[in-house]
Amino acid sequence: MNKNKLFPQINGILHGGDYNAEQWLDRPDILAKDIELMKEAGMTSATLGVFSWSAYEPVEGEYHFDWLKDVMDNLYNAGIYTVLATPSGGKPAWMAQKYSEIRRVDSYDVREHQGVRENHCMSSPVYREKVANIIRQLHAHVGNHPGLIMWHVSNELGGECYCRLCVKRFQNYLAEKFDHDINKLNKAWWTTFWSHSYNSFSQIEPPYKNGDFSIMGLNLEWKRFTTWNMNDYMKSEIKLLRELTPDIPITTNFMQLYDGLDYRPMAKELDVISWDSYPRFHNDYESLADVMGQNTFDHAVMRSMKKDKPFMLMESAPGLVNWHPYNKLKRPGIHKLFSYNAIACGSDTVQYFQWRKGRGSFEQYHGAVVDHLGTNDTRIFKEVAALGAELDGLSEITGTLIRSKVALLFDWDNMWAIDDVKALGQESKKYPETCMSVYKELTKRGVDVDVIASDEPLDDYDVVVAPMLYMLRDGAAESLAAFVKRGGQLLSTYFTGYVDKDQLCILGGFPGNGLADVFGIISEEIDTLYPSDRNSVSFTDGSSCELRDYAEILRVGTADVLGTYDSDFYAGNAAVTVNSYGEGKAYYVAARIDYSKLGEIMEQMMVNAGIAIKDLPDGVQYHCRYADDGTAYGFFLNNTNEPQTISEVHGTDIQTKNIFDGKMELAPFGVSIIKENN
Amino acid sequence: MNKNKLFPQINGILHGGDYNAEQWLDRPDILAKDIELMKEAGMTSATLGVFSWSAYEPVEGEYHFDWLKDVMDNLYNAGIYTVLATPSGGKPAWMAQKYSEIRRVDSYDVREHQGVRENHCMSSPVYREKVANIIRQLHAHVGNHPGLIMWHVSNELGGECYCRLCVKRFQNYLAEKFDHDINKLNKAWWTTFWSHSYNSFSQIEPPYKNGDFSIMGLNLEWKRFTTWNMNDYMKSEIKLLRELTPDIPITTNFMQLYDGLDYRPMAKELDVISWDSYPRFHNDYESLADVMGQNTFDHAVMRSMKKDKPFMLMESAPGLVNWHPYNKLKRPGIHKLFSYNAIACGSDTVQYFQWRKGRGSFEQYHGAVVDHLGTNDTRIFKEVAALGAELDGLSEITGTLIRSKVALLFDWDNMWAIDDVKALGQESKKYPETCMSVYKELTKRGVDVDVIASDEPLDDYDVVVAPMLYMLRDGAAESLAAFVKRGGQLLSTYFTGYVDKDQLCILGGFPGNGLADVFGIISEEIDTLYPSDRNSVSFTDGSSCELRDYAEILRVGTADVLGTYDSDFYAGNAAVTVNSYGEGKAYYVAARIDYSKLGEIMEQMMVNAGIAIKDLPDGVQYHCRYADDGTAYGFFLNNTNEPQTISEVHGTDIQTKNIFDGKMELAPFGVSIIKENN
Amino acid sequence: MNKNKLFPQINGILHGGDYNAEQWLDRPDILAKDIELMKEAGMTSATLGVFSWSAYEPVEGEYHFDWLKDVMDNLYNAGIYTVLATPSGGKPAWMAQKYSEIRRVDSYDVREHQGVRENHCMSSPVYREKVANIIRQLHAHVGNHPGLIMWHVSNELGGECYCRLCVKRFQNYLAEKFDHDINKLNKAWWTTFWSHSYNSFSQIEPPYKNGDFSIMGLNLEWKRFTTWNMNDYMKSEIKLLRELTPDIPITTNFMQLYDGLDYRPMAKELDVISWDSYPRFHNDYESLADVMGQNTFDHAVMRSMKKDKPFMLMESAPGLVNWHPYNKLKRPGIHKLFSYNAIACGSDTVQYFQWRKGRGSFEQYHGAVVDHLGTNDTRIFKEVAALGAELDGLSEITGTLIRSKVALLFDWDNMWAIDDVKALGQESKKYPETCMSVYKELTKRGVDVDVIASDEPLDDYDVVVAPMLYMLRDGAAESLAAFVKRGGQLLSTYFTGYVDKDQLCILGGFPGNGLADVFGIISEEIDTLYPSDRNSVSFTDGSSCELRDYAEILRVGTADVLGTYDSDFYAGNAAVTVNSYGEGKAYYVAARIDYSKLGEIMEQMMVNAGIAIKDLPDGVQYHCRYADDGTAYGFFLNNTNEPQTISEVHGTDIQTKNIFDGKMELAPFGVSIIKENN
Repeated sequence: MNKNKLFPQINGILHGGDYNAEQWLDRPDILAKDIELMKEAGMTSATLGVFSWSAYEPVEGEYHFDWLKDVMDNLYNAGIYTVLATPSGGKPAWMAQKYSEIRRVDSYDVREHQGVRENHCMSSPVYREKVANIIRQLHAHVGNHPGLIMWHVSNELGGECYCRLCVKRFQNYLAEKFDHDINKLNKAWWTTFWSHSYNSFSQIEPPYKNGDFSIMGLNLEWKRFTTWNMNDYMKSEIKLLRELTPDIPITTNFMQLYDGLDYRPMAKELDVISWDSYPRFHNDYESLADVMGQNTFDHAVMRSMKKDKPFMLMESAPGLVNWHPYNKLKRPGIHKLFSYNAIACGSDTVQYFQWRKGRGSFEQYHGAVVDHLGTNDTRIFKEVAALGAELDGLSEITGTLIRSKVALLFDWDNMWAIDDVKALGQESKKYPETCMSVYKELTKRGVDVDVIASDEPLDDYDVVVAPMLYMLRDGAAESLAAFVKRGGQLLSTYFTGYVDKDQLCILGGFPGNGLADVFGIISEEIDTLYPSDRNSVSFTDGSSCELRDYAEILRVGTADVLGTYDSDFYAGNAAVTVNSYGEGKAYYVAARIDYSKLGEIMEQMMVNAGIAIKDLPDGVQYHCRYADDGTAYGFFLNNTNEPQTISEVHGTDIQTKNIFDGKMELAPFGVSIIKENN
Repeated sequence: MNKNKLFPQINGILHGGDYNAEQWLDRPDILAKDIELMKEAGMTSATLGVFSWSAYEPVEGEYHFDWLKDVMDNLYNAGIYTVLATPSGGKPAWMAQKYSEIRRVDSYDVREHQGVRENHCMSSPVYREKVANIIRQLHAHVGNHPGLIMWHVSNELGGECYCRLCVKRFQNYLAEKFDHDINKLNKAWWTTFWSHSYNSFSQIEPPYKNGDFSIMGLNLEWKRFTTWNMNDYMKSEIKLLRELTPDIPITTNFMQLYDGLDYRPMAKELDVISWDSYPRFHNDYESLADVMGQNTFDHAVMRSMKKDKPFMLMESAPGLVNWHPYNKLKRPGIHKLFSYNAIACGSDTVQYFQWRKGRGSFEQYHGAVVDHLGTNDTRIFKEVAALGAELDGLSEITGTLIRSKVALLFDWDNMWAIDDVKALGQESKKYPETCMSVYKELTKRGVDVDVIASDEPLDDYDVVVAPMLYMLRDGAAESLAAFVKRGGQLLSTYFTGYVDKDQLCILGGFPGNGLADVFGIISEEIDTLYPSDRNSVSFTDGSSCELRDYAEILRVGTADVLGTYDSDFYAGNAAVTVNSYGEGKAYYVAARIDYSKLGEIMEQMMVNAGIAIKDLPDGVQYHCRYADDGTAYGFFLNNTNEPQTISEVHGTDIQTKNIFDGKMELAPFGVSIIKENN
Repeated sequence: MNKNKLFPQINGILHGGDYNAEQWLDRPDILAKDIELMKEAGMTSATLGVFSWSAYEPVEGEYHFDWLKDVMDNLYNAGIYTVLATPSGGKPAWMAQKYSEIRRVDSYDVREHQGVRENHCMSSPVYREKVANIIRQLHAHVGNHPGLIMWHVSNELGGECYCRLCVKRFQNYLAEKFDHDINKLNKAWWTTFWSHSYNSFSQIEPPYKNGDFSIMGLNLEWKRFTTWNMNDYMKSEIKLLRELTPDIPITTNFMQLYDGLDYRPMAKELDVISWDSYPRFHNDYESLADVMGQNTFDHAVMRSMKKDKPFMLMESAPGLVNWHPYNKLKRPGIHKLFSYNAIACGSDTVQYFQWRKGRGSFEQYHGAVVDHLGTNDTRIFKEVAALGAELDGLSEITGTLIRSKVALLFDWDNMWAIDDVKALGQESKKYPETCMSVYKELTKRGVDVDVIASDEPLDDYDVVVAPMLYMLRDGAAESLAAFVKRGGQLLSTYFTGYVDKDQLCILGGFPGNGLADVFGIISEEIDTLYPSDRNSVSFTDGSSCELRDYAEILRVGTADVLGTYDSDFYAGNAAVTVNSYGEGKAYYVAARIDYSKLGEIMEQMMVNAGIAIKDLPDGVQYHCRYADDGTAYGFFLNNTNEPQTISEVHGTDIQTKNIFDGKMELAPFGVSIIKENN
């Protein structure tokens, strides 16, 4: 057994999902049927209690936990373990009515009414006390249950609160951060602009929609504070859980590149990363391979937050969801393909929202294993059950890990800064899309890539790609310079190194903080193109490509020019350069060129760095997980509905036991896990 | 004289309109000119007092009714009768200033400022008292005037109020509805979801925009309550009016498929149905025949609320309106065509908003009989006057009624439920559009159709069409089953029978409550397509048609398969079925197929039921009204600007006295009323 | 020296820009470098103090002016004069915190939080007192500085406030305006409509978004009041400045056709007009000539507010701005072309926002002379410096003026009325666009045109164009009639003369107030077309043109018909007419015909009036400024990137000294100033 296996109690890949048993307490027949169907579907886990507070405590101080214990008993007796949520994601109506401070205040300074979910004030002492109490109660009743294998803190934490309690905490947070020196803050935020200087921390308000949204530093710090405050809240739950059950691992379920919180500081507090994945399959604007490519990027973001552990696919939808603009059915085979993609990318679980469709309210049509029809013979149930049978047999890959020599830098605060910057084109900034597009080019070449923060250590990497790294955190430029100097291959793009961590522009030339030397260029101007504008770049090797949206005009210092602009007033100027710096090379792509061309440049970087590239058919993905003993498990996934032939496969399919030493055929939407010959 | 004739005092079709005399009290010359012009235009009625409160009571407790009496006298002496509004549609500024409770609170819980119209709080005791007082005053001054032929309660009632008074009434309404048992409500609304259970009715708030919009049952009940409360308010006016003038009939003016109120419970309180019709003629997205087709559907909705009485076209625009996105002129002849369409569909009046254009404020450019120019020689005046002369000669058709053997089911709460459901495609639900499109296919075949509620008796019908009947009210499924069993022809579509009256999903298979047996199928999944997705259906008779938006995947039981899907993973599966059930047939159309094909299926149902179909040229409509003695008056309307030839006409044109026994020519935009040979 | 030269201290065209020195007080090296670079760039002025309040008074009552005096000294010693702003555009945080009344209340009656800029309450006594105090302080420290050449009151005044103080002032303003007679107001606003009559001025509220927006008169008067109140506020600053420094001229910086304020009454209070110009160059929806054409119109609006003085281009962007949807770089040569266009149109300055890019907050990427790079060798710096050198040599044209015999009527309140009118097409009203399109046709013909109010004297003009003059101010119709009678050429269009100054419709025929006689027609109906609708007009001379959006149906009286409609039900009716009235001619264009055709009609009017027309290549502009002695300076500007040949040039280029007597070649984007032979 690999030492990083998450759940020793469970044989193969954990198979589970949200189970809202409290919705069916008046239907014991259905609760009994659920156990039967879960066994049939090969479920090994159920997530309980996500929204059970009103069931636990329907009246203040009046508790009901027997039903929960019964459900956990019945599951456990059927060999199904419980992931137990703390119920703080949904606050009871009586509490919202009695304690108004637990309800958030919105960005117009208006207190919300009770409703929806995940919207308690993170600062409220009353709420924290109420949550601590219900967790103690929960622990008292089922905390030592043998079926309990994990805590699931709250649910999809997110959002902001602008109440007086939060504002006060924000002011204190700022005073701490700026050493109780208001002029330090004034300088960092450049508040002399528009006469916005403060003379006291008490004057600072959040960026209310009918207040101040003109100070970039304030806007950014408010987002950082929201992460800090949400994390502080989450830690208050975690601290108590660790006291009560030191041996039960803790997670919370993240969302896809959720832009309201920087997940990285939160990840540090968790034992395991888990997240909820809901791609828009079969849409009318991109291919299935593109959908899966983005999903792969999302998995990499999550995986890279804890590189030494598998992550968990905490939620996914059997069949369809109910909140996409068009809620199309997942075609046959896609559920399996999607689930294996998660595993290929490092997940050790496949979990669903939800086990059984509820009869009413917001998510009554959200995909589930068991439909309102209630039978085991639906298409969805049969696909889930077939997958469940397979997952049980994958014990040998549990606890294996991805190892990567390539990193893509992605920072939440860089995303926030770019999103907020008053420059460029309002509709064409597309920082996350740019990162994903770059990532897809690497995925096409069968290269597993870590997605990391710009100030994480780069020691393990040979290639680093840093698209649009507009904001330079303290030390980030120095780290990149050192990386290249010791032989690394670095690629950056237009809009790199303009500002410091407070969004103050760096004086003396972009990219700043020494990066101009690393790249051997200075960017003098950035041209923002209208959507229909086009230009192109001609390369010294005779190739060319189109560009759109952005083009910087460079002053070339020590760099070699690889490509030049073809037209406009900067025709002939450098568009793509490479600079030898120490032992390494630093590529600068000054314009938004075609991603396929960018892929070719990165391919050259792999060659420089001696990193192996796969020659894969279009639409086929490859990922590799390694066991403690170094055994490599190669995952081949066919994201097309045509059969595909893979070459250079050497090893054994761990499910079919077929042995390959050259070509391998993949069925439409097919998956193959090859234990590779070493 | 037919016994259902609305106004014995008036010879032919009533010809009238809103007359805002209070705007011209300082211009006696204009008031005198109005009488003269009304006579010239053949007006037999004027609607007075719709917004006269400030003129009646400019200062609290100070009354001015002499001007009203003078106007009514002058009209009466000229042979023009008065429809008199209660003035509650527009509250005086002094009242809004002094009694803030009469102003509504919006969906963000913010009290509105004074302004606009039709926006008093329906719950306010102060407002009800003020309204009762002004009605008593009005009655005291003109209640016995010989010219008074009808009360017009308030004006275009609509909108919502979220004030504390309304919230309290909502809570009481719910407590009554759920037998003062909060858990009954919790179950009906599935509030365990997201931990939303209440433990007291006092915790329930309306679906504030910054509150709870996640409980489908709450959202729906709030809309039902708004109808209940508006009706309660309206009844408070009606009760008083009936006490004061037991013999004067009462109406209120409805709006086209207004989605804020379920008009049917309100209709029960009225003596006559009336409504305001403003089609967008000559637009750039549909043909005139389509515009008229939709107008015909709208008339049918109104007519079917009181099948034993003609209805009233209370408002329509001479010339143009002022609030459409593009306020295009009605082309010559359209005014006549549109007016006759109302009559053909069961109206015994043609009325206008407005008689004379006011000089200022919001509707100064709304079409009127008399323009700012003020003369009798404008195109509009001449068209109105020509029509007026004709209407006077139509005495024999007043009081005649439409008789229909075909019903289309349309429920307001089904529309609200579909609109709110978190499923399908956000932009492609189109329930009312679907009903209209189905209706138009029936109209093309010259079949008059009632539009009724799903729980109304079906005894009088041989064919029932129920598109997208998502919500099954209590008894609706049983009624449909009985209808088919006794020999009826029933057609339903995808998205039928999913939920009960509280929007709880029905377990055990859709369509629920026994309808799966009636149709001999179960719908296992519904696929929502992206807008550019297409599929098609091939029928056993060799024909085929396209489909878009929605496609259900059926399990076929006892039904015969009429058509199957051509592509996608459910190719070959049943798309259209028919089931013999008792003496009747139940058709199920599982996908959004072309409406022309749906028309063919319905045509087959007519044949099955022995209902006559007309063979009409494209763009020509036919409707038929019956006198007490059974005499049939056939209306032929040419919605094209080409002459059209109708075949199989047998009877006498009651206006030209021409006799037809075969072909009849209709002029462009022409109308012919044929007293049919029996 | 021409007597209207603005600044005798400065040799040529003033060259300057906003200089936010307070942002760099901790960087004396940068402040020193600024002086050096300004000299290199040929700057003769700097605008100081626009947002310096927090720097002057960081804590209430604690003042810091030494830095300002130092900066002014250093500038003055380098030959650079100071335009000094009053700092009221940006209120300090401490003030907003302590005195809530200075913060505005929005249109939903919600008090704003502190933030952004130009948003103090105009009515607040506290703010006026604080502003007076800081101005006194400012004067005490630098009011007699020899470098001070102008006061710049506040900054880009604009916006509205709905607070109680403003509401009370509004009520008083209305009481004054309507002679304290509420019924006079009721009549003017037609408040009997929808029962909106007031019985006290205290009942009147502004048009809150959740209040009354249905009274056109109220909406309009609120806008007029906002101008009145802003002007009253501005005058409170000006009054004090005049007391303190009677000899220093005063301006405030206007914005391009800003629709929140009628600039004309404000202009009367100023010594010089100045404005901020930021065209969207190189966009993807219009040619550079169109961009420059609109800019020319904008200059004309500003210039015409004080015809006896040059105006100032107070702000423009070197390089790019940061708030356009796409912030594209100005191509080489455009900065010069744009700057000369301002001069050609009557400006005696070229000024920038901003001298040096700040490091942070909202405008950190707004174009500046000095970039974050900080050097004198950037493209932008070099273009600015080259221009600076030229401007210094243009002394002889400073103080020269444009003289025009053609006027285009444009009223702010007409714009507001059309914008608000509930009629026509919501998206196709386009009053300002129509004025600009008409103006461009005149510009293409080398005719300088004044843009004036409809009630200004017309004595100096021979041709008047009045597009869409929907609202007739008191006396405007009479003035136009007199103009034509004495021999003027007048052109009006559809939607002319419908309402009086309160927006009450004129009875008896449009265009009203006697204009029907002047044009010899009455407009009976106006047809609003859908966007895809087209019609055309055939002229008596055999030509024809297309029309869209609007077409009036005319009753032709004494007018001659020049063109008739080709299709629709008004085919054959008059579309364009001309009427001889007195000694002049009045053209009426009843439909929105192609502007090129309208240009031909206006060309005929020039011929009638004996006004010279230039035959210019496409994309070339011509303007002419006259010295006191009558010397004419012709400006030729090539708005294309091709060389262009101009014919009939007779004079001397004042920069190259080349002499022309016939053809002249203009380089791409080239400019030539010809001292014309007389």
